[in-house]
Parts: sequence; structure tokens; C-alpha cells
Amino acid sequence: MAQGEPTYKLAGRGSKPQDTVIDVKGHTVGGNELFVIAGPCAVESEAQLFEITKAVKSTGVSFLRGGAFKPRTSPYSFQGLKEEGLHLLQQAAQTYDLGIVTEVMDLSLLDTVYPYTDILQIGSRNMKNYHFLKALGKTDKPILLKRGMDATVEEWLLAAEYILNGGNEQVILCERGIRSFDTTLRNTLDLASVALVKELSHLPVIVDPSQATGKRSVVSAMSKAAVAAGADGLMIEVHNEPEDALSDGPQSLRIPQFVKLMEDLESLSKVSGKSLPNSEMQMVDLG
Amino acid sequence: MAQGEPTYKLAGRGSKPQDTVIDVKGHTVGGNELFVIAGPCAVESEAQLFEITKAVKSTGVSFLRGGAFKPRTSPYSFQGLKEEGLHLLQQAAQTYDLGIVTEVMDLSLLDTVYPYTDILQIGSRNMKNYHFLKALGKTDKPILLKRGMDATVEEWLLAAEYILNGGNEQVILCERGIRSFDTTLRNTLDLASVALVKELSHLPVIVDPSQATGKRSVVSAMSKAAVAAGADGLMIEVHNEPEDALSDGPQSLRIPQFVKLMEDLESLSKVSGKSLPNSEMQMVDLG
Amino acid sequence: MAQGEPTYKLAGRGSKPQDTVIDVKGHTVGGNELFVIAGPCAVESEAQLFEITKAVKSTGVSFLRGGAFKPRTSPYSFQGLKEEGLHLLQQAAQTYDLGIVTEVMDLSLLDTVYPYTDILQIGSRNMKNYHFLKALGKTDKPILLKRGMDATVEEWLLAAEYILNGGNEQVILCERGIRSFDTTLRNTLDLASVALVKELSHLPVIVDPSQATGKRSVVSAMSKAAVAAGADGLMIEVHNEPEDALSDGPQSLRIPQFVKLMEDLESLSKVSGKSLPNSEMQMVDLG
Amino acid sequence: MAQGEPTYKLAGRGSKPQDTVIDVKGHTVGGNELFVIAGPCAVESEAQLFEITKAVKSTGVSFLRGGAFKPRTSPYSFQGLKEEGLHLLQQAAQTYDLGIVTEVMDLSLLDTVYPYTDILQIGSRNMKNYHFLKALGKTDKPILLKRGMDATVEEWLLAAEYILNGGNEQVILCERGIRSFDTTLRNTLDLASVALVKELSHLPVIVDPSQATGKRSVVSAMSKAAVAAGADGLMIEVHNEPEDALSDGPQSLRIPQFVKLMEDLESLSKVSGKSLPNSEMQMVDLG
Repeated sequence: MAQGEPTYKLAGRGSKPQDTVIDVKGHTVGGNELFVIAGPCAVESEAQLFEITKAVKSTGVSFLRGGAFKPRTSPYSFQGLKEEGLHLLQQAAQTYDLGIVTEVMDLSLLDTVYPYTDILQIGSRNMKNYHFLKALGKTDKPILLKRGMDATVEEWLLAAEYILNGGNEQVILCERGIRSFDTTLRNTLDLASVALVKELSHLPVIVDPSQATGKRSVVSAMSKAAVAAGADGLMIEVHNEPEDALSDGPQSLRIPQFVKLMEDLESLSKVSGKSLPNSEMQMVDLG
Repeated sequence: MAQGEPTYKLAGRGSKPQDTVIDVKGHTVGGNELFVIAGPCAVESEAQLFEITKAVKSTGVSFLRGGAFKPRTSPYSFQGLKEEGLHLLQQAAQTYDLGIVTEVMDLSLLDTVYPYTDILQIGSRNMKNYHFLKALGKTDKPILLKRGMDATVEEWLLAAEYILNGGNEQVILCERGIRSFDTTLRNTLDLASVALVKELSHLPVIVDPSQATGKRSVVSAMSKAAVAAGADGLMIEVHNEPEDALSDGPQSLRIPQFVKLMEDLESLSKVSGKSLPNSEMQMVDLG
Repeated sequence: MAQGEPTYKLAGRGSKPQDTVIDVKGHTVGGNELFVIAGPCAVESEAQLFEITKAVKSTGVSFLRGGAFKPRTSPYSFQGLKEEGLHLLQQAAQTYDLGIVTEVMDLSLLDTVYPYTDILQIGSRNMKNYHFLKALGKTDKPILLKRGMDATVEEWLLAAEYILNGGNEQVILCERGIRSFDTTLRNTLDLASVALVKELSHLPVIVDPSQATGKRSVVSAMSKAAVAAGADGLMIEVHNEPEDALSDGPQSLRIPQFVKLMEDLESLSKVSGKSLPNSEMQMVDLG
Repeated sequence: MAQGEPTYKLAGRGSKPQDTVIDVKGHTVGGNELFVIAGPCAVESEAQLFEITKAVKSTGVSFLRGGAFKPRTSPYSFQGLKEEGLHLLQQAAQTYDLGIVTEVMDLSLLDTVYPYTDILQIGSRNMKNYHFLKALGKTDKPILLKRGMDATVEEWLLAAEYILNGGNEQVILCERGIRSFDTTLRNTLDLASVALVKELSHLPVIVDPSQATGKRSVVSAMSKAAVAAGADGLMIEVHNEPEDALSDGPQSLRIPQFVKLMEDLESLSKVSGKSLPNSEMQMVDLG
């Protein structure tokens, strides 16, 4: 970069001091709403997806997540239901009136995924795929930009800069853990980066404690910690039968655990100056 | 380890399912009290120490911290006031009725430090000094065991095991950040380890967000996140004039910032099932 | 993966004990030849490229490298000459009778890059872009698969497995450094992974000490270490005027340094059981 | 550090441009000799130690290694034979006319270990124990300073600076791997740090590929790579029956593997401008 110029011309607070608030499907990210995305890691079947969607809808969740095209370390692992998965996501989301977040695994799949989703997710493995980022900067839907597991905060914000520079100002950052020497958990959730990014940038930041930790028993504690750290929202994996999940079962909350977590977040988010959408009504429903 | 034997014979929940609660100087660590230790990184002078101690006392702080012997990366950096520092700590703590936590940098300094402190701190750099750990297992004061910046959770708990195995059951674990590839902040605060350790072990765990991040502006957010994650307490660096601090000024909270944080923790800790000691009275005093 | 099945069905020694030797443009990778790729980080101009190509040709180099589409951390950095860069690479390679290695930054650029290059390079940032890997498995040119800077050896071999599983058996692995807490150098060159991969897999492995270290003064030592560790080749950045390079100048060898390195490799590779192609003649030319 | 002052007043090339060559027991470290230390991880018994010592003596080894006090992650693992181990080391070294390197695990053990050893080893876990380093700066024997597994190159050189600043100029640095996210091998051997340290400092640097990798099958390749990278020597674990070793058996070379490695190093070190001591004679003996 040229000497003296700001590193983040568009993503930085320098160019836009006030928080960016993104409106999407009747919800907001980056404002007073605690924006919670929940659902299974991967769409596996109609029965699985509808049971989970029904359950998460009963709490203060705004959006449904679910992978249709799955990036997997081994070519011999389940690769997702692909277009059938997108169809199922659409049906479940319409039935329960939720928005959809799903990943675009490659630029060549953008046209396929675009019509089905409200937010285009860029996975951790693609955060440094700059050609892809430029192309997404030309789209008109909000982008959920996951942090690369090997990305510094600077590289993460510069990835957002690529999208903003293309013309799309609706970028939601998502911290999902980085790689460290301690492999007891899947990754190391870096919550200090949330506070740092809120200081450097006006963009909203949410946290994915499921991918970050890979371990169900710590997901609720990390969700609460994320909210206390100032995150604008959460992305949480929930499964009706995690033992039989086709991908990432060990990190998915069981439905009752998730319901309990949302109750806890109701109290906690008030202390943090956020609130769950329609939460009063929702909490009555849960009773 | 022999096949089939538990890794943590003494530190694990297997041998002792219920939480260990440590009584020290009229306070408890590991129970319902949010145990907050605050003070300067290093004891620098009587004026500095007394001003900081007076300020932290006015909030719900239980213990005073302050380094007298300082481990520094360069031999040419300030190495601490040594025994004079210990004397000053004692005077300040007595004047304001606080307990003392200070580091024993080497086994050869144990006899010097022991009479002055209520809790013996083992620094991050010594967490794998097993000969030292064995010797501390023979002492009768609580041990604050900081996690090594290169230590896995397993290695950290096994370090505690060394102390417990020597006969001292009063071990307080302290997460203080680990090293990762992202050096934007000083270290990477690993809050998921707090939740994990609470699951694996009955020992109390506190968090040091100052050492972990090295950056004042994120310390308050990380303190709140730590409490929401289930930490039993906090260890926070506070300075009256951080710009002139002889060590670690950039990570020390200013006094008004610290007072504000303690007010926030008052609300937050209630949600988390903890409370600050005498907090009602303290908060009145602050008004 | 199913219990009992090998992790690497195709990339592992289990399915193919003998070394894979890849023939490309009159050279071999994985056999007795020390396969050296050299050239600038990025193609910048005809004059720059031809001067460098002429110089590297005079040593025992087999292939010319040069980036036409450049993945850059900031959108405001030089992004490469794109198709003009590919044209120049082709001209320089034809003039000096060398093969070409250049990166395909995105699947959507494959058709553009394919006709110009003899080996299709997958950059570090794309190693986990599985949709892309599958597509490259359907091509008929050798693939240079750089290790992701956050990839374990297992993930790297499984990325190769994706390509092999698509039908393309010509995969050349390239170690280029991983991220660690020590950022003194650009990355941490992991030479033990070379020895490990040679044990686990039959695929050839080369090393890129320029990207790995980011520092000219250690590139020659690391090139020699790579050969002694058993690498099948090297990929080295060379520049005629590194101070004026548009990308990665600090890690590019000056031409005289590169000539000296090739002389040293001539002796060293004999000890290691490899040899530079036509090296006797070449060395005479240098005299 | 004060602005403008060199970071490494004593360890840097600025204060002493020429290489430091340390004379110890008829050998030199840092000059033309390839200084090889070999022996078991831990002294286990007279029979074990003598068999290994006899074998390593028959090659070009200069010094015998062997742990008497062992730092172990678990308090329930073998902790070394302690003083009995020191006695055995002394007997074996005298019988086969070798020097001794063994670790001082704590300052309180210095007086115990000092009389037995020719070189005082500081283990990786103690590299940041600054009080200990200061004390060793007051001794008159060469210090083998292992790099901390979480230490940057700067911190490693500043640890040496502590010793030099105390008055002891005989510091031998030893790279032994750092922690990274890839835990396939025990640590990540950072050979680029060897080249970097040789550039920044006049102190000799050796490499321990056994501790660095934890895996016998890659130790020989990494030993050769270290020599090609410019290391002044090696520290290698050898065992007569590694399957039955009480500590670190999987990383110990079998005796025939070690003999073969020393033959390979004979050729390689000539190319690198070093030679094994009395190697001609030794090699004849091996025939």
C-alpha cells in the first residue's frame, strides 16, 4: 500500500465512523438486534431439516443455516445434497418464515446458489480467494465472510475490502476460530478479534462457536462469551440427532440445549445492549 | 501414562466431581464470588502503587496484584524493584485491606517472596518447570498457575497435577492467552479453554485479559466475555499513568475504565450466577 | 472415513509403493533429476521477464515460473498483467526453450490459463478449495499443488487425493511454509514435512524457499537444506532488480546469487543422489 | 530498549562480526568441525548407556548426551535416575573418552550437575527463565541454550544475551523445533531460523532433529538438511532398544541407522565446508 494511505479505505472506521446496519428479510445485523442464525451443519433430509427448523423457529432465531454443497477434507466424505439441499432449505425456510444463509463454495456455483439464499456465505477456506471476492463484490445480496482459519485480522478486513471495493457494502464478518498449536478443540476461538474488529471497522461481526470449537459441551458458554464480547450475532449448529449427523455431529447442539441457550441469551443480551427479535413473545411461546 | 489410568488422577473431575472452592483472606475462589485481582503490572513506586490500590479498593476487588521481580525478554529492560517492591505491596495491601498475589520467578526466590504474599503466582514461562512445580506442591499457600503460552490444556492440567501430587490442593488456574500466528494482539485469549477446563477439572479458573491481549481497548470486552464463559475470576492490570508505566503500559486499564468495568461486571456476573463481594455497598460508595 | 480403509487410497504408498515420476516437456519430476523452477514472482514487463529468463536458462533450470494473475492481500496492490502476462511468459519460454509453470487463481480462469502453461499451479490459498480441486482432476496437465499455509500434512495429501480421484495422476506437491507464531520470517518452512510426505506418498515433492521465508538472504541455505532433506526439486524466485519488483522483491534472489546457488546445488545434489539436467554442459557455459 | 541501541549488544554481529568458536574438551563448536552430540534421551541403566556410548564413539561423535533429571509432562512418568544417572554418564564418557552434555533442570540443581558435565544444557522449557539465565551467566562452562518451543528468534537471542551479559561468552544455540498447528510430528523444525541466526549472531548454532520431529524415520533426513542449512552441529538421540526406552523411544535412531547417518554426514559436511573430527580414521574403523 502507498505510504500514508489508510489500509482499509472502505472497511475502516476512518471512512465511516458509524456502525453499518444491514437490513435483510425483516431483520437487522449490526444494530440492536442480536442476530442468530441456526440450523444443521449440512442439509441431510427433509425430515431432519424440518424438525430442526421448527425447533429453532420457536426461539428468537432470525435465519436458518444449512450446507448444501459441503467442503470436506476427504473426497470420500459426504459432499452435501447439492441442489436438492437448496430446494429443501427453501421449503423449510418458507414454511417457518425464516431467512436463509448458505455457502457458495466456488464462483462457478454462484448462479446455482444465488436464487435460494438471502445471504451468500463465503467459507473460511475461500476467504483468500481474491478472484471470488471481487466477483461477490458485484452481487447485490449480503455476504457472510467467514474468517480464514489462517487469516490475521488485517487479512480478514482486507478480504472485506475486496468485496466493498466491488460495490457491495453489505458485508457481515464471522469469526469462526483460528488454528493454533492446541488441537484439543477443533480451532481456537479468537474472541478478542471481535472486540478489535468492532474498533477498527464499522462492519457487523458475528461468531460461529460450533465450527470454532468442534465440541458441543462448550458451544453454549462460547455463545454467551461472544455476546458479552460485543458480537452482533451468532451462527450455531443444531441437530435433532447429532450422533447420526452426516457431518460435524460432535459440535452440534441438541435441540433442548439450544432452547436453553436462547433463554440464557435473552437475559445476557439485555445486559449487553442487544435484544433478540420479538423475544418477549417468543419466550412466552417457549413457556 | 499406564494404559487405562486417568490422565489427571487428582486434578480431574473423576477423583473429585464437585468444584474446589479455595478460601483465602476472607474471600473464595471457585464458588459464587467473582474473584477479581487488580493492580499494576509492576510495582514502580510508593506513590504509583498507593494511588492504584486506593482506586481498585473502591470497587469490588478482592486482591491486589503487582510484580516485584519481573521476567523481561531483554536483560536491558526494567527488572522490578525486587524486595523493595515486596515491601511496598505489603504496605499498600495492609493500608487498604486487600490480599496480595505476586509472582515467584524462581525456586531460589521462594523464601524471599513467601512471607509477603497470600497467593504464590507461577508465571506463564515457568508452567513447565516441573522441578519448581514439585517444590510448590510442598508449600501451604494457594498457587495461581498461569497457563504457558505454548501449553495445551492437557499440559496445563498436568502442571496442576504436579502441584496437587505434592500435597498442595489449592491450585487456581489462570488462562492468559496462547501464541498463534496472529500477532496483531499480544497473544490469543483462549476462552474456550476456560469452559473445557471447568468440564475436565474441579479446580477454579480465572482469566488475565491484560496479558492475553496487550491492548487496553479490548481488555474490558474480554473481561466480560471471560465471565460469560464461566470464569471464576479475573486478573486485570490497572495503572494511574499508563503512558509512563515501566512495563506493559499499553495493556493497563486507566482507573476510570476499570471502575466502569467493575460496574458492568456487577450486572453481568448476576446473570452468570456469580457476584462481586460486598458489591452492593461498594456500588453505593461509587455513587 | 470408514474404519479400516486407508486415508489416502490413491496418494498413499499403500496403493503404489514405487515413486511417481512425471514427464513434462523433456524433464522428469520425482526421478533422478533435480527439477528446478525459477523466475520472477510476477511477470512485470517484457524486458524484466526476458532478462531473468535468459539468466536462469544459463544454469540447470528446467522450468520458468511467473505470475500473471496475482493473489494479493490488498485490493490496492498490483494484481498482475493478466493475459498480457501469459503472452509474455509464452514468448520468453519459447525463446529460451523452457517449460512454464503459472497459477490458476480460480476455476473461472482455467480456460484462459490452460493453453499457456505446461504445469497448472494451485496456490496455497486454494489448496482447500475442493470444488476447484475436483475440476483440476479432470484436466490432463500436471498439477503443482502448493501446501496451504494452514494445512496439515494429512490435509495436503487429501487435497492431492481429490485431484487423483478425478483421474489426473500427475500431481507435484510443493511445500511453501506454514504459519506459526514466529513472524520474523514470512512463514515457517517445514522441511520435515518433505521427508514425511516422501514416506507416506509416492508423489514428487518440491520446495519453494522464497515464499516460505520471504527473505533473500536465507533462500540459498534453505534451497540446499531442501535438497538434503530429499526434495525432488525447487521453485525459486529470481529478479533482475528486486528493489523495484512489483511484488515480493525482498524474497527474490539476485541473478548472481541464483547462479552461485545452482553451482552449489550441482555438488550437493550428487551427494543426495539427484543431478541437474545437462549440468556438465551448463556448468561449462557458466565458466 | 532505548531507541537506537542495538537489540543484541553482545550476541549480535554488530559487536563481534567474526564467528565465535568455542573450545571444549579437545573439540570446537562454531568452526570447521561438525560438532555431533549423540546418546540416549535418558540414562536408564549402565548396560544401556555403555552399549550406546560404545556405538556412537565408533563414529565421528564428539560428545555424549543423556538426561539424568528429566522434565516430563506428567508427574507419573519416569523422572530420570537423577544423581545415579550423572555417575553413569561420567563413567561412560571416561571409558570412551567423550565429553558430556546434560541438562540442568533448575537453578537449585546447578551445584549437583556442574561437576559431572562439560556443557550445561538449558532445556526448551527453561529458555525464558530469566533468573536462571542470569545465574548461568556467572558460570564458567559452555551453555547449550535450547530454543523455547514458543520462542521467536528474537527472544532466543535475547535469552543468549542474558547469559553473555552475565559474563559467560560460551553460548551454543540449539534449534529443537517450535509448536505449530500441525501436530503430525512432535514439533515443527525451523531450519530457516538457523540461517537467520547465523546472519544475526556470531554464536554457534546446532540442531536437535530428534526432539524437533519425534519420529525416527525423518531424523536422518533432517540431520542432513540441518548441515546443508549451515548448522554447526547436531544433537541426536540414539538408543540400542528404542521399543523399550523409558522416554522418547519413537524418536531415537537405532544404532545402525545412526552409523549410516554419520557416513552420509561425512560426505555432506565436506560440501558444506565442515568436517567430522578424525573422520578419516573413524571411517576406516567402521569398515
